[in-house]
Amino acid sequence: MSYMDHSATSPVDPEVLEAMLPYFKESFGNASTLYSLGREARTAMEKARKQVASLIGARAEEVYFTSGGTESDNLAIKGTISRLKGKGNHIITSAIEHPAVEETCKYLEKNGYTVTYLPVGEDGIVKMEDLKESTREDTILITIMHANNEIGTIQPIKEIGALAREKGILFHTDAVQSVGKIPVNVEDMNVDLLSISAHKLHGPKGVGALYIRKGVRIDPLFHGGGHERGVRPGTENIPGIVGLGKACQLAEENLYENMEYVASLRDQLIKGVLGSIEQSFLNGHPTKRLPNNANFRFSSIEGESLILQLDFKGINASTGSACSSNKLEPSHVLMAIGLEEVDAHGSLRISLGKENTPKDIDSSIVVIKEVVERLRSMSPLWCPGGN
Amino acid sequence: MSYMDHSATSPVDPEVLEAMLPYFKESFGNASTLYSLGREARTAMEKARKQVASLIGARAEEVYFTSGGTESDNLAIKGTISRLKGKGNHIITSAIEHPAVEETCKYLEKNGYTVTYLPVGEDGIVKMEDLKESTREDTILITIMHANNEIGTIQPIKEIGALAREKGILFHTDAVQSVGKIPVNVEDMNVDLLSISAHKLHGPKGVGALYIRKGVRIDPLFHGGGHERGVRPGTENIPGIVGLGKACQLAEENLYENMEYVASLRDQLIKGVLGSIEQSFLNGHPTKRLPNNANFRFSSIEGESLILQLDFKGINASTGSACSSNKLEPSHVLMAIGLEEVDAHGSLRISLGKENTPKDIDSSIVVIKEVVERLRSMSPLWCPGGN
Repeated sequence: MSYMDHSATSPVDPEVLEAMLPYFKESFGNASTLYSLGREARTAMEKARKQVASLIGARAEEVYFTSGGTESDNLAIKGTISRLKGKGNHIITSAIEHPAVEETCKYLEKNGYTVTYLPVGEDGIVKMEDLKESTREDTILITIMHANNEIGTIQPIKEIGALAREKGILFHTDAVQSVGKIPVNVEDMNVDLLSISAHKLHGPKGVGALYIRKGVRIDPLFHGGGHERGVRPGTENIPGIVGLGKACQLAEENLYENMEYVASLRDQLIKGVLGSIEQSFLNGHPTKRLPNNANFRFSSIEGESLILQLDFKGINASTGSACSSNKLEPSHVLMAIGLEEVDAHGSLRISLGKENTPKDIDSSIVVIKEVVERLRSMSPLWCPGGN
Repeated sequence: MSYMDHSATSPVDPEVLEAMLPYFKESFGNASTLYSLGREARTAMEKARKQVASLIGARAEEVYFTSGGTESDNLAIKGTISRLKGKGNHIITSAIEHPAVEETCKYLEKNGYTVTYLPVGEDGIVKMEDLKESTREDTILITIMHANNEIGTIQPIKEIGALAREKGILFHTDAVQSVGKIPVNVEDMNVDLLSISAHKLHGPKGVGALYIRKGVRIDPLFHGGGHERGVRPGTENIPGIVGLGKACQLAEENLYENMEYVASLRDQLIKGVLGSIEQSFLNGHPTKRLPNNANFRFSSIEGESLILQLDFKGINASTGSACSSNKLEPSHVLMAIGLEEVDAHGSLRISLGKENTPKDIDSSIVVIKEVVERLRSMSPLWCPGGN
């Protein structure tokens, strides 16, 4: 099997699982208890907090543990604007955010907030001029993702952050797809809040983190015990937190090596696919993209059939994103970069991981070509040589 | 070591961990993906949903997975009242709820809602007359816990539910401490919403569930992908969910046997402590309490010192609850049953589990007596024979 859907989720690294295991059965203490077993849990949690902080250039006390990326995004957005009542009700985001940000913004629009959805170019990148023009006196938050989950496009976060700071506007970035894949540094990037999900970087599902710059005030989404300094009540998920920490440590240690390796596989894949399959195209920016992401479109191909055929041949990949795969609508990301609806339905996202090999890529190119050609041979829409 | 703090958390059952393990590394698929690995994750999740439903007498489609008890409580309360805007703004709860309910209610009081906190008697039980009198035309929700996390007292949930139904008021119960310990059946108990936490019943931390009766409308706390039918967006924590399911299955299979066993240990403990330590008392109801809970108070003893001394002797127990152990205030539960502040500070919660043995209990009684007597010998407040 060639698993090539790492943007949806990734297997837990054996070292990560090994680090987690003692915290299920032996060192299972509740971190809020006074006795030794509780202290042991707290120590493990604080070590993990340092590991997460180190990967993103933050201080440990600026890292708060959550149940994952969706919670981190919701907490960042709802938690900060709730503190800024009276200061304004305008939020700026992009047209290609993950549903955790997009749907939160839509919800806020129904509740008295005004949201500007910045368009992106064909390359999937927001324009700084658009951002500048959209800022207003009553803008309280900018939330723009670091790297896109479908097309892998990387936004100019540093510039966006600098503008936000200049204007005195809080800046959140959903970095779920980028943390552990490319360098992320909250100081360099001028961000105030940054979302992380463990399972996207070979950590476990059900745990994530939110970086909150010291001094940024935030209201909790949950009320309860005073866990995570009141920002996120609920008994701490120690094995999950330890797993996230270990995954961050491993990602930091191997970041440049993995980037280079995975990018070489991606380039091999792009070259092979575009070179061997007629009327195939790459969606998103040619270079400003995640090292592990390739998003293709093939004329006259229906994405769902493609995915199922590839699965049959042992390749796991996505059309659109996993988080909206149950929807019948075309991907809002692909529509935002200007694709026709029919092409947006025919896209293929391949997101690679360190377990993939050059051999996987070679055989995948052959299989993709074979499947695309077979599907086209059955399609009344297919017109060799173009329309 | 004698771990006797199962109300704070419990070790993951070896069978539960075994059931979870394949979902970290091999069957690690994202349940929202179309291919076989994703379907495998969905199948595992739906099996777990049935296991949870079976333990509480619900239908699988009435079970929604969350990150734990705190989230379930917050979702149940905030999610339902948000749908009942215009119908009323009055909520009824008890004075001895877990902070996840108590603090949520306090938050709502600051946001336009009126909350009645029903008092409890010395036995820790709410009075049906008080509840009846407190219901109003504009009461939209009753949220009263099933079993208390400090003193183990079991509330008359069936009667409360019947009254709620008669009056057309939604009824939520925090059953985090009771599920898996005593019989819980949502039909018998007339509840509309019920919170579950996995780590209290030998499942993993970071996962829980909310039962929502079919037909009850609820707004999500998180916005994002359409996971859990829109009620709880976010990539599903498959290993955690599988663990919760397995823990529920094991709890159901062994419920009566475990109840009887643990209750016999508890009775041995209560008899031993009250019989051998002078001026020792049992907090809460003598019989209407969880089979695993004993909550003592000892005159002239400071709880924190007691806990630390017991830890030194290998016994893990709590004073107050784990979730509020960082607070300096006395337990609101112990104050609500009428204890003086000094006594509330001197309480000892022992919560047993199936791993404890009669031998553990015998030696614990000796250790507790020894520690209490030593602490008293150093206390200027101690007055043998009583004041």
